[in-house]
Amino acid sequence: MPESTLAIEPADDLRYDLSSRILRSGIDMDVFNRRISIAEAATIIQQSLDRKYLGAASSSIIHHLGMMHERVTALQATFPASALHAIAIKANPVVEVLRELVHAGAGLEAASIEEVELAFAAGCPIEKIVFDSPAKTHSEIEQALHWGIYLNADNFAELVRIAARQEKQRSASQVGLRVNPLVGGGTIASTSVSLQTSKFGVRLSTDRQRILQSFAEYDWLTGLHVHVGSQGCQLELLAEAAYRISQLQQEIQAQTGRLVRTIDIGGGLPTAYHDRTAPPGIERYEAALREHAPGLFAPNVRLITELGRAVQANCGIAVSRVEYVKPAERLAVIHLGADFLLRTAYRPEDWSHELFVMDSQGREKYGDPTPQTIAGPLCFAGDIVARDAHLPPIEPGDWIVIRDVGAYTLSMWSRHCNRSMPAVIGYDPRQPEPLRLLRRAESPGDIARFWSLGAGTGF
Amino acid sequence: MPESTLAIEPADDLRYDLSSRILRSGIDMDVFNRRISIAEAATIIQQSLDRKYLGAASSSIIHHLGMMHERVTALQATFPASALHAIAIKANPVVEVLRELVHAGAGLEAASIEEVELAFAAGCPIEKIVFDSPAKTHSEIEQALHWGIYLNADNFAELVRIAARQEKQRSASQVGLRVNPLVGGGTIASTSVSLQTSKFGVRLSTDRQRILQSFAEYDWLTGLHVHVGSQGCQLELLAEAAYRISQLQQEIQAQTGRLVRTIDIGGGLPTAYHDRTAPPGIERYEAALREHAPGLFAPNVRLITELGRAVQANCGIAVSRVEYVKPAERLAVIHLGADFLLRTAYRPEDWSHELFVMDSQGREKYGDPTPQTIAGPLCFAGDIVARDAHLPPIEPGDWIVIRDVGAYTLSMWSRHCNRSMPAVIGYDPRQPEPLRLLRRAESPGDIARFWSLGAGTGF
Repeated sequence: MPESTLAIEPADDLRYDLSSRILRSGIDMDVFNRRISIAEAATIIQQSLDRKYLGAASSSIIHHLGMMHERVTALQATFPASALHAIAIKANPVVEVLRELVHAGAGLEAASIEEVELAFAAGCPIEKIVFDSPAKTHSEIEQALHWGIYLNADNFAELVRIAARQEKQRSASQVGLRVNPLVGGGTIASTSVSLQTSKFGVRLSTDRQRILQSFAEYDWLTGLHVHVGSQGCQLELLAEAAYRISQLQQEIQAQTGRLVRTIDIGGGLPTAYHDRTAPPGIERYEAALREHAPGLFAPNVRLITELGRAVQANCGIAVSRVEYVKPAERLAVIHLGADFLLRTAYRPEDWSHELFVMDSQGREKYGDPTPQTIAGPLCFAGDIVARDAHLPPIEPGDWIVIRDVGAYTLSMWSRHCNRSMPAVIGYDPRQPEPLRLLRRAESPGDIARFWSLGAGTGF
Repeated sequence: MPESTLAIEPADDLRYDLSSRILRSGIDMDVFNRRISIAEAATIIQQSLDRKYLGAASSSIIHHLGMMHERVTALQATFPASALHAIAIKANPVVEVLRELVHAGAGLEAASIEEVELAFAAGCPIEKIVFDSPAKTHSEIEQALHWGIYLNADNFAELVRIAARQEKQRSASQVGLRVNPLVGGGTIASTSVSLQTSKFGVRLSTDRQRILQSFAEYDWLTGLHVHVGSQGCQLELLAEAAYRISQLQQEIQAQTGRLVRTIDIGGGLPTAYHDRTAPPGIERYEAALREHAPGLFAPNVRLITELGRAVQANCGIAVSRVEYVKPAERLAVIHLGADFLLRTAYRPEDWSHELFVMDSQGREKYGDPTPQTIAGPLCFAGDIVARDAHLPPIEPGDWIVIRDVGAYTLSMWSRHCNRSMPAVIGYDPRQPEPLRLLRRAESPGDIARFWSLGAGTGF
């Protein structure tokens, strides 16, 4: 553990120091910075039209499984072989997508007991599932311990519940504790989780003694979980959090004589939504962790990562037909809106997507870009996909491609105005037939059934 | 039509004038201002616990069918008997709720072809369905005309599509045209639809000649539709919009010699989310329309209203158990969050809900109110139901009641973190057994099926 310039309080000079070392080389086009190009999007649309995935259907969501696979492979190559890369299900819960992740050797991170069920549906081995939720009920804890799933407790009250169950019947589960390292927030408040007011975890500062006591008391408590948010957080924050957790790890080991066997680094790598930004690549992320928190890489420690957006966002594009154009308003209406891109609709200042315009045959459109607004199909004035985007002339029948929608878009699908969810199509240019259906589109009948009395099977 | 002080441009003195006449009497506690009280909420929770709708289930959504019925009756009593009150399905699409509306004699307004299907599922007669969507496809237009449903065209290009279909085969449908009266916006940008930049309708100012031509050309075009948004819009704006549409109506009738048979006043009445605000009651709304746009009340005109929020919001409460309390953060974690209250999570400055705290038996809790944050269950830092709300002391096992959630909450349900949607329970104190299930809760298995390959039946 390098004492060097690192202190518990993140000082400005630390940030400077870290950035000068880690972010020194400007743009790094590694696999985590690759995005689907306009040429590749054109190929995908043309093949989708040929295969009738588009045409009668006015929209579809395409997930580049080849690109996703490449990222998982890069993670595995960069981190120690013993590391578990548990990809956040909440980023993209399509079962066929999860199944591909499992095939590639990744694990799955579940934010709810329902997402544990999704991990099972995708064929994920029990030992590769991580169960995180800040609101685990008694019965959910019982379930997870019964199955023997790794779970991260969010708070001390949850540890007490787990202890009660462990006394009755000892589980095969390993348990971690989520610690808030209080390194401060990133640029996007709603995805910053390391503030004083954060709802997650126990506090490294004021709760330190109680954390140590818990590890002394509970021999099944063998893991630490830390998370500092993802999009909008700089590498320095992440490295600082890892450093603090690594320090806590040493302290626990020194005091209890037991090993902290698992360190789970949640959140992580920012993602490129524009070519002008180049997030740190995975190598630099790993290097920063290794430099500032070498304890995470000790041979007897299992490192868990919980990437979601960084793996999935760039793999997705959405394609939607222009239904109407309103010249006076310089506005085009497409078939995806705040149902699919709810963060873009409600917080456009934080979440925006780049667009391509293709003609009805899926060919790139040319012509002088002018400011045009792309509106969604909902009866809701805030249903705007992009306001005043500089785009070539748009006509009805054109296709609008929305880039980087592979994470936190479809997964957050909102029923607002009750439009059918479009089909999800997998794209893998390594396969003889690159396109395949991952989830069928909904129909109006599905929506009527969804809201009917007997739709659910819960209680 | 009173010339009086009204002019096409809304002048400040007009607004003053209108408010002095219409809003003169301060608070008016009519049925549209009634909210579910803490005593009534306690009764509902206690009965729900007795009936086992709560307990094993950590949340449920309760809709006061008696209150909803009362509002529909008030609408029918206030407006001419010939008026059609088409309640917006998008406000609350639970089929059993829609069925109750239909029983009460209301119609249904569909924002998508899927919502037309929901209207069918609820047993709504064809002639009481209104189909509004700014993105109707050729096949959706074909469907609606085939069924003979009233539809409002959003723009001239849509009229051309309808004309093509009418030439091939004449439909029983009546068609209206949505006009943007450009009266300006309300206090909430995302629900204001009468701005220059609005995505909806044709513009009354610049498109006036083309509107008149369309009515001259298409004999099946017999309706006008106007909408100025709802929540955040003052009565003056609504009355001004009605005045302008009434003036256009006269002009069309004078020029074409044909009657504008239907006037559809979308949007409408603001709703009380706090006792300190008293929105204008339905009588004053009707009086304002009648005074400033008497053409809407001509004997040969069918008036359509499209209320949603005003009828539904106050009828709903959500009840959710406190799972954990974090004293240092003055924070309680419940089981509903940004999945249910997405506008509150993403735009808390515009959308907030009042809360009650009940003990585990459903009794009101007392004790000095202190600022406490109510957090949702999602792995998402922005998942906050209320920040620093002044509430009595909260313990795990307590119930948090979220008020006025009958509209644009469950209907916008987001899959974020994939938690099961809770059951929806109907409450009607007029019935011998006041509670009944309106929609079963989802289970983890339902969620896994939802994201699986064969979940949909569309193409």
